Amino acid sequence: MAYLVFRRRLTIEWGHCDPAGIVFNSRYFEYFDWSTTLLFQAALGFGKPELQAKFDADMPLVDARAKFLRPASYGDEVEIASTIGEFRRSSFDVQHRLSKDGELAVEGVETRVWVGRDANDPAQFRAKPLPGELIDAFKASS
Amino acid sequence: MAYLVFRRRLTIEWGHCDPAGIVFNSRYFEYFDWSTTLLFQAALGFGKPELQAKFDADMPLVDARAKFLRPASYGDEVEIASTIGEFRRSSFDVQHRLSKDGELAVEGVETRVWVGRDANDPAQFRAKPLPGELIDAFKASS
Amino acid sequence: MAYLVFRRRLTIEWGHCDPAGIVFNSRYFEYFDWSTTLLFQAALGFGKPELQAKFDADMPLVDARAKFLRPASYGDEVEIASTIGEFRRSSFDVQHRLSKDGELAVEGVETRVWVGRDANDPAQFRAKPLPGELIDAFKASS
Amino acid sequence: MAYLVFRRRLTIEWGHCDPAGIVFNSRYFEYFDWSTTLLFQAALGFGKPELQAKFDADMPLVDARAKFLRPASYGDEVEIASTIGEFRRSSFDVQHRLSKDGELAVEGVETRVWVGRDANDPAQFRAKPLPGELIDAFKASS
Repeated sequence: MAYLVFRRRLTIEWGHCDPAGIVFNSRYFEYFDWSTTLLFQAALGFGKPELQAKFDADMPLVDARAKFLRPASYGDEVEIASTIGEFRRSSFDVQHRLSKDGELAVEGVETRVWVGRDANDPAQFRAKPLPGELIDAFKASS
Repeated sequence: MAYLVFRRRLTIEWGHCDPAGIVFNSRYFEYFDWSTTLLFQAALGFGKPELQAKFDADMPLVDARAKFLRPASYGDEVEIASTIGEFRRSSFDVQHRLSKDGELAVEGVETRVWVGRDANDPAQFRAKPLPGELIDAFKASS
Repeated sequence: MAYLVFRRRLTIEWGHCDPAGIVFNSRYFEYFDWSTTLLFQAALGFGKPELQAKFDADMPLVDARAKFLRPASYGDEVEIASTIGEFRRSSFDVQHRLSKDGELAVEGVETRVWVGRDANDPAQFRAKPLPGELIDAFKASS
Repeated sequence: MAYLVFRRRLTIEWGHCDPAGIVFNSRYFEYFDWSTTLLFQAALGFGKPELQAKFDADMPLVDARAKFLRPASYGDEVEIASTIGEFRRSSFDVQHRLSKDGELAVEGVETRVWVGRDANDPAQFRAKPLPGELIDAFKASS
């Protein structure tokens, strides 16, 4: 199953780099979080507030991982390609591939859970099944 | 009038520095924002949520400024001394002096406004007079 | 004298905002620093490494200031317009105006000094006169 | 084999939290990176520059991962306990356990490679065996 791929280009900023002259690792997780937002926006046509309202749900991050294959530095133009790695019953993976000059530089995976408020205790959130309509939006757009 | 001075020491982290090997400027504004929180906590004995609840007020930042006199680098131990520069009717200045080896390295000033919800339109915030009790807390502790 | 104005649009990211739901102040200083880099690139046609090499100079920040007039939140599309406020003998101001829906939201000013290595002590940097060629690049492009 | 454990306490800052009121994920990777530096400093008695000089080596991050088990919010006091998960021939894992009120909240693992300059091409870095002296420093201190 191939899902929608969202691509964006960005230039590495001076303030994102450390004294070794390369992107400080936490910045990649910022890039990936934002790419996930943009991927969902591309698939659904709306952003986080509307997603929360429409589905009465949120999608907190439960696991984030990155492999750093080659460094990126100030001024480098990179591309991030993001897609759904897998939809499971009530969780899913988002894969991010950041490349530089066409070569993979950083590979990230976020695992997120689909949650809604507990009917008996609205202060609590519980995992709930991913709506078919949501999953279809990633297929339809691909 | 000398007001309470709150001092804290911190070590400059690798991830706070840029490719020139010195603290990236935005980090100083992070340090100062947090020092203001700690200064208020030291004066009042409680944090932001209690402050908001007790005074039905907030203190948004309307102006932030820093002068960079000497650079600080990874591993440097610095001290930040923070105090009220001036209390006005419904706004005040917080002064931050970051020093390294006893010499002033960065001087910051934040101007904050004391605001509460508008009685006629609770979605709006309006400047309101600073409570004498709040000001006294900074005197009493000095 | 009107100098080159560099404009860019950006969308406020979730991770740039604080629990009040608005951009955390230090992020504006990140935005402005990067806009200065892009402004110089637009004027000169090259980036920081080439600038340092060509002029044997750097331009450290000695003063940064921002006035926060209205908040910006996650998902807001804003525009930053950056230009030279004033060129002095060996320092200059960069003005940044961040607007949202056509209204000014944050106004920033950076003061930077033009420095080169001291002839007698290359470990030291000294302010030196701004090259006419540099100043002309900001005029020519406007 | 139990290696040295380095513990530090920190208070979650306002500026580290997002509009959901919880720590934005990238901040945890900042915390962990700095804890690794402090762990090495505790084991060796010196910091990154001395480590690089003494061993003619660096230890770039090649993989970073975090599991987010429970959220932390502004004002929370948390503890990070960091230790070596495993020393391999020329790479190692650093484990970080961030807990709040005694309960594990975030679990992080960094994988780092021990590298030195290539004898034939000093611009290149190559993995090289971890010195026994380095490993011993983590045992001796435990």
